[in-house]
Amino acid sequence: MSPVHPRLLEDCHVLGQLELCRVLLHRNSSVPWFILVPDVAAELIELHELDAGARQRLDAELDLVARFTKERFDAAKLNVAAIGNIVPQLHVHVVGRRPDDPCWPGVVWGRLPAGPAWPEATLAALADELAVLGMRTWRS
Amino acid sequence: MSPVHPRLLEDCHVLGQLELCRVLLHRNSSVPWFILVPDVAAELIELHELDAGARQRLDAELDLVARFTKERFDAAKLNVAAIGNIVPQLHVHVVGRRPDDPCWPGVVWGRLPAGPAWPEATLAALADELAVLGMRTWRS
Repeated sequence: MSPVHPRLLEDCHVLGQLELCRVLLHRNSSVPWFILVPDVAAELIELHELDAGARQRLDAELDLVARFTKERFDAAKLNVAAIGNIVPQLHVHVVGRRPDDPCWPGVVWGRLPAGPAWPEATLAALADELAVLGMRTWRS
Repeated sequence: MSPVHPRLLEDCHVLGQLELCRVLLHRNSSVPWFILVPDVAAELIELHELDAGARQRLDAELDLVARFTKERFDAAKLNVAAIGNIVPQLHVHVVGRRPDDPCWPGVVWGRLPAGPAWPEATLAALADELAVLGMRTWRS
């Protein structure tokens, strides 16, 4: 399995693994900010470089996390983005947004003020809830 | 056909129409910033709400515009994002990024300084080049 980029590991908890993607959660709990990291060759850094099977699988996993985020956190809007200007490894953000979050209506990337960590109990609960949806858990 | 949101029309040129999406280009030429607006029911505002056919068609059109942007503008990285915090109509950004652009490595959303308009000749050339790739042109 391709290792997750150190910068992502620094910023995020690793909650577990779907069929294609590692499921990360940003450590700043001000917004529910998931990051999916597909386990693909390191030279594939753009969505359009994935083969059809991986792309469809990625979409399915993004949709799963998107639906979960919307329902679990009562998100008014989802922000789904492949950016990668700083971390080249292909990864896709799924961020649940609400008018009462610290960045609304702006984006969170490069803008989210420091915020509280996720409580351990919430991390465990989120991993359990995602496990019900098919994620293998291996939190770090 | 569903009308394009007035805020998008204010910010962008409409270059034409692929099978599913209207192809817009942000008026600020500092970065090649395309926006695809799928012609779907107004209540569908999230990627995961599209049916499988529309989602696959959207991916194909995003990939087409992504490849075009990467090659035509020698982009180092593509930023592909569905945000919609301000304009609820489903639309997906495809932005060609380079280390010498005004926002690198930050994101462009809400951050791009005012910049020059696209020359008319470039707009016409871009529309022609995208027409070769299957876009029907109807620039405004």
